[in-house]
Amino acid sequence: MRKVVALGVGMTKFSGKQDKTAVELLTEAAMDAINESNIKPKDIQAMFIGNALSDFCEGQGQPHAFAADALGIAGIPANRYEGACASGSAAARDAYLWVASGYYDIVLAGGTETAAKMGTPLATRTFAMFSDSRYEYASGLTFPGVFGMLTNLYSTRYGIPMEKLKRQLAQVSVNSHYYGARNPKAQFQKEISIEDVFNGIMVAYPLQLLDCCPFTDGAAAVVFASEEKAKKLTNKPVSVVGIGQSSAGNLASQKEYLPRLRAREIASKQAYDMAGVKPQDIDVIELHDCFSTATLIALESLGFFEFGKAAEAVEKGKTKIGGKIAVNPSGGLKAKGHPIGATGVAQVYEIARQLRGECGERQVEGAKYGMTDTLGGDGGTIVNLILKKG
Amino acid sequence: MRKVVALGVGMTKFSGKQDKTAVELLTEAAMDAINESNIKPKDIQAMFIGNALSDFCEGQGQPHAFAADALGIAGIPANRYEGACASGSAAARDAYLWVASGYYDIVLAGGTETAAKMGTPLATRTFAMFSDSRYEYASGLTFPGVFGMLTNLYSTRYGIPMEKLKRQLAQVSVNSHYYGARNPKAQFQKEISIEDVFNGIMVAYPLQLLDCCPFTDGAAAVVFASEEKAKKLTNKPVSVVGIGQSSAGNLASQKEYLPRLRAREIASKQAYDMAGVKPQDIDVIELHDCFSTATLIALESLGFFEFGKAAEAVEKGKTKIGGKIAVNPSGGLKAKGHPIGATGVAQVYEIARQLRGECGERQVEGAKYGMTDTLGGDGGTIVNLILKKG
Repeated sequence: MRKVVALGVGMTKFSGKQDKTAVELLTEAAMDAINESNIKPKDIQAMFIGNALSDFCEGQGQPHAFAADALGIAGIPANRYEGACASGSAAARDAYLWVASGYYDIVLAGGTETAAKMGTPLATRTFAMFSDSRYEYASGLTFPGVFGMLTNLYSTRYGIPMEKLKRQLAQVSVNSHYYGARNPKAQFQKEISIEDVFNGIMVAYPLQLLDCCPFTDGAAAVVFASEEKAKKLTNKPVSVVGIGQSSAGNLASQKEYLPRLRAREIASKQAYDMAGVKPQDIDVIELHDCFSTATLIALESLGFFEFGKAAEAVEKGKTKIGGKIAVNPSGGLKAKGHPIGATGVAQVYEIARQLRGECGERQVEGAKYGMTDTLGGDGGTIVNLILKKG
Repeated sequence: MRKVVALGVGMTKFSGKQDKTAVELLTEAAMDAINESNIKPKDIQAMFIGNALSDFCEGQGQPHAFAADALGIAGIPANRYEGACASGSAAARDAYLWVASGYYDIVLAGGTETAAKMGTPLATRTFAMFSDSRYEYASGLTFPGVFGMLTNLYSTRYGIPMEKLKRQLAQVSVNSHYYGARNPKAQFQKEISIEDVFNGIMVAYPLQLLDCCPFTDGAAAVVFASEEKAKKLTNKPVSVVGIGQSSAGNLASQKEYLPRLRAREIASKQAYDMAGVKPQDIDVIELHDCFSTATLIALESLGFFEFGKAAEAVEKGKTKIGGKIAVNPSGGLKAKGHPIGATGVAQVYEIARQLRGECGERQVEGAKYGMTDTLGGDGGTIVNLILKKG
């Protein structure tokens, strides 16, 4: 396997409902990534696209093919990946291999979604299909419900009184909005307070509105290239040094383990082992904060804090820039926004920019190793990537 | 890149509406393939699944993850590919690379669908989303309409009077049903006559009911392994020696080229070049006969007959076993059935069995090279694989 460089990255402004289609958004992000890579569309040899909902949102089942056509490269192979919120990450991991194996020299991984167009109630109902339709979706469970239950379990399992835990969880969202306010591409560029979280409507006990990420319209893209090609095209290379992916069954099948998510422990171990690093070597992570509780669960399964200790760590500022691990400096899913199929690639966008030192007032100074973490469904698909400066 | 062997293959009975879910069907086909490979589920290192409609049919967005769990291997990476009718083929091509690259030794490619459950009218409307939703789906076009138009264009472009062409097209379906009647896994195991085709209802002029393949419930799977692993597990190896994939925009974007499909010419050339063979070296092909016209278009773009000459070739028996090229001895999409996401993998199933000489009265004697061909949407995704005995 040869070294793979994340060359140029691109991303649309993330937003609520807007007028562009999933194909148009993807094309815009792809052209940004292509231009930043100092290449032309015709240099792209294959496209790997994450997309979960455009058939439901727009009646568009093959956005990947029509985006290739819009870029003027209709003849290349283009795949669409569906792994719920991890769709874009699965696409990126696959794109990595096509270059690492030597089959292609330059490929594009991307993701696109117009989930906000559906409106939150319909999107929530539709997206619940990424749970187990035989037992979970069929019983009326949606993802706010999944994470509401996990929050209750977290409180019980680790003996943290709910009132205390709720304040710690609110801090997760406060942190995300603090950074989102410093990211010009974020959907919500506004700081919030813990009191704002407590004043929100109850969504799924104990999660209130500001514990929950939004549905978002947006797209992101990254060009992966062989080291040889990249040498001629960039003087700020960022390399993919670790990849990992794992699946899981429904929540009931994971019950002995919860609120830990075993798939994340498997996937991240693969990525750490391949990169030859440990959690303490990671300087910055973009992780899957679909709900405030999800951040705690991720931080622990990824090995940054002991089980049951992440909530306290957040409260003490250990997850902010300058703390033990800089978490979601982009604003994360909560403030940057969550265009489902694009999220994993948008995480790569942020990590690449962080490792290049291009993030302005939300920069993690001197970051050498960065990581992405995406969770699809209730653990169904988890993907981790580790990137390195140089 | 190292040699990849298609080890064991599995397939459910293809049928109309039945009671199993997409996950259950996939698990059944996967266990067949695993058992035939002389391995255990735990030997599978990753799963690559084609599926286009299970979210619409069953509210099941992640059948890949839940199938991995049902097989007792929840922790492995599992991806879902959506490329319309070519979903399973895209999954198989990808699975091939993960083994060829040396990353994994044993992986499973599969496809599953419960499209018949929706009923033909709703499935036709839903599946139309795999055309371009901005211009095609939005104007009311469905795939019978796409192929009805292509048939009219074929008649005009090549100067074949419609009455003559209709009889030649009917022969395509007659051939498929002849072989379907000899395939115990086929949805329609009944021979038909040209008169039967002419007596069917008109679907989209000039295509009548028996010019059109059905929607089908079913699943298929294949285990790919490195040559080293395969040596210990089978004495009837079949190797993947060529892969190709290409995309295209909507029909209007292809208008200079139609009724030729440029994506198929690109994809098949890749596969031929990689395998170091020409069309005349292929002994048996499973090709994408979603409508009778589609067979003609495929035969020509794949290089088996000159443009405008496939209809006459079919009439003269050149596409039957013993003719120039044995086409769809499984019964094809028309008679074996078309469970969208499973179709490409079911093609691999048939070709592997043909190359092993296990197809009884529909056996292509002495077949050395076999090919698969799947068309997703109106050209959006085309994938070709070439397999070789040994």
